[in-house]
Amino acid sequence: MTTSPVILEQVEAANRAFYDAFQNGDIGAMEACWRDGPGVSCVHPGGPIISGWPLVRASWEAILESEPEFVMDIEVVDVTVEDPVAWVTCLERMSRLGHAGRAGAQVVATNMFVLDATGWRLSVHHASPVM
Amino acid sequence: MTTSPVILEQVEAANRAFYDAFQNGDIGAMEACWRDGPGVSCVHPGGPIISGWPLVRASWEAILESEPEFVMDIEVVDVTVEDPVAWVTCLERMSRLGHAGRAGAQVVATNMFVLDATGWRLSVHHASPVM
Repeated sequence: MTTSPVILEQVEAANRAFYDAFQNGDIGAMEACWRDGPGVSCVHPGGPIISGWPLVRASWEAILESEPEFVMDIEVVDVTVEDPVAWVTCLERMSRLGHAGRAGAQVVATNMFVLDATGWRLSVHHASPVM
Repeated sequence: MTTSPVILEQVEAANRAFYDAFQNGDIGAMEACWRDGPGVSCVHPGGPIISGWPLVRASWEAILESEPEFVMDIEVVDVTVEDPVAWVTCLERMSRLGHAGRAGAQVVATNMFVLDATGWRLSVHHASPVM
């Protein structure tokens, strides 16, 4: 079954909102992207599984506070919808300004969203380095 | 809403079948675990995104042919069901026999299953090393 372009655009917009919050270091916007319910988990590149929104939130707070300025280019590879769940695979190309040693780091991510009355909310973010 | 123990057990059984196929180097059993439809993707530890069942199958063929004997211990961290989708987060502790250098490698994985008429089929496997 083909997913309607309207739904695909909703999911892509939710995915963009997540990366905008990341890029802008905005924990409030980050919180608005995530589901606060069962099945919330997050893996940062090279990190362990973080389960549940309170711990996931704390991990983002630490990252958003500590990240130097960077430019993030996101390439969406695929978007799939199986109502009420959608998942997006994407490449994250990060270039940190003034940190030549980590410039050009490439990360792959699977982002899974669940639709509720407030829209598509991020439930799983699994990011890993491409070596 | 609490998910019925029967459904949780179905999802955990699908997750075990995947790791049994991996451990046994059985590409036929591996194929039986996966969905052959939209939204199939796989990330092996340190690898890129592999999209679509034909390429995902080829990646498993290569892995199952090349893997030396190993013992895999799987710890399920969390199982969540949002019908017709379920996701399992787990730790994969792999010890390769006679390969002391890689013994004790720890990997975290997010496995996402979609329910169809044949049962819960794996649609996304994202595995990454814990550094």
